[in-house]
Amino acid sequence: MPTDAPERAQPTIKFLQQPTRSDWIDQALQNLDTILLDHSHCERKAAGVAVNMMFRYPSYTKLVRTLTAIAREELEHFELVNQWLDRRGIALAPLPAPPYGSKLSAQVRRDEPERLLDMLLVSGLIEARSHERLGLLAQHLPDPDLAKFYRSLMASEARHYGAYWVLATTYFEVDEVTVRLQELATVESELLATLHPHPRIHS
Amino acid sequence: MPTDAPERAQPTIKFLQQPTRSDWIDQALQNLDTILLDHSHCERKAAGVAVNMMFRYPSYTKLVRTLTAIAREELEHFELVNQWLDRRGIALAPLPAPPYGSKLSAQVRRDEPERLLDMLLVSGLIEARSHERLGLLAQHLPDPDLAKFYRSLMASEARHYGAYWVLATTYFEVDEVTVRLQELATVESELLATLHPHPRIHS
Repeated sequence: MPTDAPERAQPTIKFLQQPTRSDWIDQALQNLDTILLDHSHCERKAAGVAVNMMFRYPSYTKLVRTLTAIAREELEHFELVNQWLDRRGIALAPLPAPPYGSKLSAQVRRDEPERLLDMLLVSGLIEARSHERLGLLAQHLPDPDLAKFYRSLMASEARHYGAYWVLATTYFEVDEVTVRLQELATVESELLATLHPHPRIHS
Repeated sequence: MPTDAPERAQPTIKFLQQPTRSDWIDQALQNLDTILLDHSHCERKAAGVAVNMMFRYPSYTKLVRTLTAIAREELEHFELVNQWLDRRGIALAPLPAPPYGSKLSAQVRRDEPERLLDMLLVSGLIEARSHERLGLLAQHLPDPDLAKFYRSLMASEARHYGAYWVLATTYFEVDEVTVRLQELATVESELLATLHPHPRIHS
């Protein structure tokens, strides 16, 4: 990714360094009820992350307005996934999270303004990976209605990681964003280089 | 409030023991920009409370589904209030909270299941007071468009405290809910018996 061409940065953003392992989709399809339940948790967590950032940066108008829209969409998806759980007789229940989220959060530097940059990029990376994996589900699910549902989610997941990129480049120089994104994206792909034994959206 | 008539409990729920002091509306109208900014914070906080409860009780299906709808509406209101701030040239900014919220939260018992009951009732009380005060703004605001906006918010605020009541009586016996609501409502009215010197939705 060139760091010397800020004016061309938008078209060249690349959140995912490595595509998902091919065995993830097999694991997911064999454990579909667990994947659906985990997806519900992911949508709630994504809304929670957006709302928490709105609390942490209450004066950052563009961030607040953008994250309000993202949180609303994540809550809408959460409700839609919960309707699917209901239809399939899957009870809402806690589910131990895979190490992916906490290990990515551990990369967030503790001092400002680096903290804000890292939080935006980590959120963008998670959205980008979710977009890729929901797309794999849309492609491989045998139930056409469920596949259609997953296709319908993909456009907004793509908008979300684009929005996190735009926020990052609103508050930071594009070169700094690009370099840090590359570092975090390397970690993100490494975290998924080995398939986690428990089926999850981010296993 | 009769505690011996659970079958009549819904029509007799009474969240507010005392109406708002008449000097609150004067204070509010004289400090309208601050009130609008504080209202923005209130909507974000209401969304945050709902989302946090969804995280704390992930298996409580009715609670999760109801609070998802409430959080979505609060975020929609937050965005609408922020559009009003934008139109009036009021920048998003932190604003010290009045003691109302923290003193009500201090009433929440720490152990379950009492904690859940108290959180639902405190949220219901705050929604009920917001409903009353947004209604006062709707009635007294000189700007007809802004007054109309406040009228438009009132129906959902009323739905919200009704929803918190329904959740409380879903997970607890109606007699227990009624007794505890009366205790908390007494505290809530006492907290507002003296006008807080800084103009706020809950001053």
